[in-house]
Amino acid sequence: MRVNTTTQNYFIDNIKTYNKLKRMKKYNFYAGPSILSPFAINETAKAVQNFAGTGLSILEVSHRSKEFQAVVDEANALVKELLDVPEGYEVLFLGGGASLQFYMMPLNLLKTRAAYLETGTWASNAIKQAKFVGEVEVVASSKDKNFTYIPKGYTVPADVDYFHYCSNNTIYGTEMLETPNVSVPLCADMSSDFLSHPVDVSKYDCIYAGAQKNAGPAGVTIVIIKKDKVTKEGLPTMLDYQTHIKKGSMFNTPPCLPIFTVLQTLKWYKELGGLKALEQRAIEKSTMLYDEIDRNKLFKGTVVAEDRSRMNVCFVMNEEYQELNDAFFKFASERGMVGIKGHRSVGGFRASLYNAMPKEGVEALVACMKEFEATI
Amino acid sequence: MRVNTTTQNYFIDNIKTYNKLKRMKKYNFYAGPSILSPFAINETAKAVQNFAGTGLSILEVSHRSKEFQAVVDEANALVKELLDVPEGYEVLFLGGGASLQFYMMPLNLLKTRAAYLETGTWASNAIKQAKFVGEVEVVASSKDKNFTYIPKGYTVPADVDYFHYCSNNTIYGTEMLETPNVSVPLCADMSSDFLSHPVDVSKYDCIYAGAQKNAGPAGVTIVIIKKDKVTKEGLPTMLDYQTHIKKGSMFNTPPCLPIFTVLQTLKWYKELGGLKALEQRAIEKSTMLYDEIDRNKLFKGTVVAEDRSRMNVCFVMNEEYQELNDAFFKFASERGMVGIKGHRSVGGFRASLYNAMPKEGVEALVACMKEFEATI
Repeated sequence: MRVNTTTQNYFIDNIKTYNKLKRMKKYNFYAGPSILSPFAINETAKAVQNFAGTGLSILEVSHRSKEFQAVVDEANALVKELLDVPEGYEVLFLGGGASLQFYMMPLNLLKTRAAYLETGTWASNAIKQAKFVGEVEVVASSKDKNFTYIPKGYTVPADVDYFHYCSNNTIYGTEMLETPNVSVPLCADMSSDFLSHPVDVSKYDCIYAGAQKNAGPAGVTIVIIKKDKVTKEGLPTMLDYQTHIKKGSMFNTPPCLPIFTVLQTLKWYKELGGLKALEQRAIEKSTMLYDEIDRNKLFKGTVVAEDRSRMNVCFVMNEEYQELNDAFFKFASERGMVGIKGHRSVGGFRASLYNAMPKEGVEALVACMKEFEATI
Repeated sequence: MRVNTTTQNYFIDNIKTYNKLKRMKKYNFYAGPSILSPFAINETAKAVQNFAGTGLSILEVSHRSKEFQAVVDEANALVKELLDVPEGYEVLFLGGGASLQFYMMPLNLLKTRAAYLETGTWASNAIKQAKFVGEVEVVASSKDKNFTYIPKGYTVPADVDYFHYCSNNTIYGTEMLETPNVSVPLCADMSSDFLSHPVDVSKYDCIYAGAQKNAGPAGVTIVIIKKDKVTKEGLPTMLDYQTHIKKGSMFNTPPCLPIFTVLQTLKWYKELGGLKALEQRAIEKSTMLYDEIDRNKLFKGTVVAEDRSRMNVCFVMNEEYQELNDAFFKFASERGMVGIKGHRSVGGFRASLYNAMPKEGVEALVACMKEFEATI
């Protein structure tokens, strides 16, 4: 499929394209909602004026129209293609955010007991919501050190319904780069590293991800669910995955525009070579930034080296330069770095390097760090 | 507040504006998602390219940014202003659709027993979901006549927690133009006539509405909730109104772009004179179409006269002209009428006349009906 002959150019020359579009020279490091490709943004802007040749806006076209049905069908097929989703799974596009899935997923899949790994704020919230449904065993937690590492060496009981983890912790900047090697089915909140690397979906009963990091804009959550595991009866209709599986995510009106933008994002990923290419790119970008953090006398990373996230790079000023925190923030902001303030739970800085962030953006941030160092 | 000096022109000369924007001459009668004002569409298209002067798209800006916080704050204030919401209520912008509220609302407000009125498919679904929470008394139903009327003369027990109804039934084309006169608090699904007329909010514990009719695009649901009635403890976090009240709809990432478009729609309504002006306009438009349905020998309305909806006008071919159904659909479609096919539960035709539908659109449909009649 050729999306657009200029798609590659968008990617290679992202910043130039921004300028061409008369957008300010800004580098968007927001943690989510976060940078999207100019391709997805432009296609969405066009569809807001005239969607699929209907003469109507994507904002005002019925979800039952054949034009919108085609969007959902193609988005569904592309998620399956990019992630090589095996037979027996369904892809859903739901409202309510990943936070709703913290409850909805166990409501559907937790029959007796489930195992959870606690690696951050949202992982903790997932645990809290699962406890409304059944017994939860927290097999390990990194809360003791403010979630600066991923626990290892834990044991997952063989008799639990599933083992749940959060693959990337946006706030703390940790990522589980290897799929946990356990004997029970996996369930994962992949909100912030979804579509940034290949995943062996066959090991999972459920993967869910709020779109607003790598998959698209805020307002839609993608759920990949193993159909034969969804067997509970008597659940409230909207909280029952069976409802949405049967109706192809169209039981009620879905978040149409967010799904449209997800589709454009998926098309772009396919054009770029899929998840292996994106993974390679994520490695290059994050390595570039971590190398500078480690080299620069002013800064240090907050996460143990082996668990550093490729998506969210957290760093602070070294002890002796603490008082320069606000000065660097101002310095970087004046040079077009947007959204690099660290979460209040960590402080310092966080640069999110999602798929759509061009290498040039990371280079600009690195240059900024060097330049600031030279002023000291 | 002056939104835009051309806002009035958009309204008065809606169709001309469509043409000016090189959009096709189409009249959007979809039942939802449905016609939005050119003002809301244009402002959204602009924000997709550059939001609030940030140089970034509304699709990629953090919900924690001051620019987006301002959107939520202004949308909140405008809902309160337009509906004259009294002290003690909160306005929420939630994901998941009104269908999620069918369960979430009773989960929060149904303590022992609630009374429900059954006036259509979605009202029935609301009843079904409430039964997951507590005892439900259906005080009356119009299911016996395929929901072609609104039941009258029913009694609502004085000891129920609330009386729930659906104020406008999109599928069947009925509307409750008077607020039910009962002694208990009201709760209503107002999805399809929300913001089309003034409402005495003080009579309600909860009003909810999927935005994708009069309030904006699909993907966000507006909830107006009486704060002191939300007292249950131990609810799953995302299903607890207290969570969203405390965090101003920002507990988790909200559907940002849909909320932005809702704000533009609200601004436009204020500029046009508010809900009284919109009500007057809705009366004029719906009267124009019903008059033609009653006059034209080919057509008849499906709803008893006193319960006809101003939003969704349902009509079918008269018995002797049944075989012309498809011919009229083709005839009208060729003349730019979009989305007039009736729901499968009713058949025939449905023209939705939401706030953004200009009078010219209704005139075009009426002209089409007359023209078709002349060919017979």
